[in-house]
Amino acid sequence: MNCVTTLILLFYYVKPGSRSSSYSANQFETFHLPVHRTYNYTYPLSQPITTYRIGIIADLDRKARVIGQNAWKSYYKIGYLSYTESTKAIAVSFNTDTLIELRSGFSLNGRGMELSELVTFNGKLLAFDDQTGLVFELNNEKVTVLWLLIDGDGKTTKGFKSEWATVKDEVLYVGSSGNEWTTSSGDFESYDPMYVKVVSMSGEVHHIDWISNYKKIREAAGIRWPGYMIHESGMWSEIHRKWFFLPKRCSRNRYNETLDKMMGCNLLISAEENFNKITVVTLGSYKATLRFSSFKFLPGTDDSIIVAIQTEELNGKTSTFLTAFTITGKLLLAPELIETDLKYEGLEFI
Amino acid sequence: MNCVTTLILLFYYVKPGSRSSSYSANQFETFHLPVHRTYNYTYPLSQPITTYRIGIIADLDRKARVIGQNAWKSYYKIGYLSYTESTKAIAVSFNTDTLIELRSGFSLNGRGMELSELVTFNGKLLAFDDQTGLVFELNNEKVTVLWLLIDGDGKTTKGFKSEWATVKDEVLYVGSSGNEWTTSSGDFESYDPMYVKVVSMSGEVHHIDWISNYKKIREAAGIRWPGYMIHESGMWSEIHRKWFFLPKRCSRNRYNETLDKMMGCNLLISAEENFNKITVVTLGSYKATLRFSSFKFLPGTDDSIIVAIQTEELNGKTSTFLTAFTITGKLLLAPELIETDLKYEGLEFI
Repeated sequence: MNCVTTLILLFYYVKPGSRSSSYSANQFETFHLPVHRTYNYTYPLSQPITTYRIGIIADLDRKARVIGQNAWKSYYKIGYLSYTESTKAIAVSFNTDTLIELRSGFSLNGRGMELSELVTFNGKLLAFDDQTGLVFELNNEKVTVLWLLIDGDGKTTKGFKSEWATVKDEVLYVGSSGNEWTTSSGDFESYDPMYVKVVSMSGEVHHIDWISNYKKIREAAGIRWPGYMIHESGMWSEIHRKWFFLPKRCSRNRYNETLDKMMGCNLLISAEENFNKITVVTLGSYKATLRFSSFKFLPGTDDSIIVAIQTEELNGKTSTFLTAFTITGKLLLAPELIETDLKYEGLEFI
Repeated sequence: MNCVTTLILLFYYVKPGSRSSSYSANQFETFHLPVHRTYNYTYPLSQPITTYRIGIIADLDRKARVIGQNAWKSYYKIGYLSYTESTKAIAVSFNTDTLIELRSGFSLNGRGMELSELVTFNGKLLAFDDQTGLVFELNNEKVTVLWLLIDGDGKTTKGFKSEWATVKDEVLYVGSSGNEWTTSSGDFESYDPMYVKVVSMSGEVHHIDWISNYKKIREAAGIRWPGYMIHESGMWSEIHRKWFFLPKRCSRNRYNETLDKMMGCNLLISAEENFNKITVVTLGSYKATLRFSSFKFLPGTDDSIIVAIQTEELNGKTSTFLTAFTITGKLLLAPELIETDLKYEGLEFI
């Protein structure tokens, strides 16, 4: 959808109060002039639209490797999200001509640049590779390396599988999938993906065991091992002083590769700072194949509205959708297809 | 300029603070870690843009007559004005495919639909014909007749030459050119254009003598009869409790048809409610051929920013420009050509 069309559609949503001021009197009664009429102060007659610039970043998985080269790539796409406060109408549009290719030579075990999150930290736009564990800064449409995050307690040989990132008290929190690492048949191997990396502005990295936090989150949704909940997004809200999660997949049963494709999760989970009180909001009827991959609070709404991206891998086809809803679960924008080919896993207001 | 281009240009104006956090130490000194760094809370990294819908309305003069029919026409054009609060950057774009033709059968002495102002009053969008004196309501892209304003003290046979309109204390004020009516050679004939019509919500019309107000306005700019000041725009600001005028033309000398073409006025004149104190702000170097025809305060800016349209009739060619500036005279948008063929005389946020 182009930009002008988006604006026209948004303005179409606005329904100002009645613009007719005619009045009628019963024809058999004496007509009386109305003594007082209330002035209609609506101005302008349609409400303004606020437009934010958004960026999304792709995780190309094994296709990230540039064929024939020791280079790995990702795509970065810039779009516009428009919001009308009075009607809470949201629309999104992307510049089809500005797909930016990002490249790096860093890889681990032949993989790299599988970027899974995009977040603003200390005035910088950061992107996270879920293969190497590298944290990149995205600036002037290029990436530079900032830090390297190592898996588990930091004493392992793998890069951290960064899946989500958020800022709390001037410190960056980077999380992984938040579930136990298992063999392909579902047997427990380690708690490494249940660690969280806490990174200071100057790049100090701390490895924090979040096993009990993650367990409390999934238990609030009635899920216990070997059932599972897999995370790909998480946000700290300074306004609510709460953690928010939109799990990617959840199942009360043990992992099964075939059934897992239908285990998209439609839960918004919020937790108090210490994870002692957890609230679960069931979102509308999202397709079971849609998987939340990243979300942000819409700026200027006191963290009351969430804009999220979802990916779908179905019959060999990968797509990305954008959706929006309130934190009480009211749908504002039904999943809108924003990409028919690639899987975008990071979203940020830029 | 299309809408996406407009948004891109607007975002380009935003220059966030330094995004580099590297530090260097003199190589001969011991290096000390910085004890404390200030977190950069900029978010999002680019500021949002607010988009308003605007409408402009054409005065086709004698070309308003639909050839071969007893019908008269005007054009209404819808556009978008985008504003970034942090940088005060303003951009404008119009949908080239939505030129709306408005028609009416009403005429006076063979002329009609020469619409000269557009203003929101009591939740209605009004347009004013400077030939018949009719006030139209514009709704669903059609005009309906609301009221008829008669020239001078209301006891004349001419329609009021409505040139500007504004709302004060829930009442509509409609003004004319604000100068003496003269013969073509400049001799005084009447004060009729120096009356103002005050119209209530229910359509009661009062004819108010503004001769002394208009004289005070032009005297504040050092102009005395037979010098002249011709108005085509005027606004009451409830926030400032002041009248604001952007005269169309002004001259310290007697009217001269040839010289008059260069008498565009670059003054913003504001007057206290009773016209006892008047302030004149000289605006930047506008071309002498540009003539202000309508302006509005940009919503949400506490009446601190003015968006105005200007017309130019030069060498048989008619154009319309849009410009914006603060009430202290700081230019925010240099006159931008928005129409190469027609003369638009009314502007409103719609």
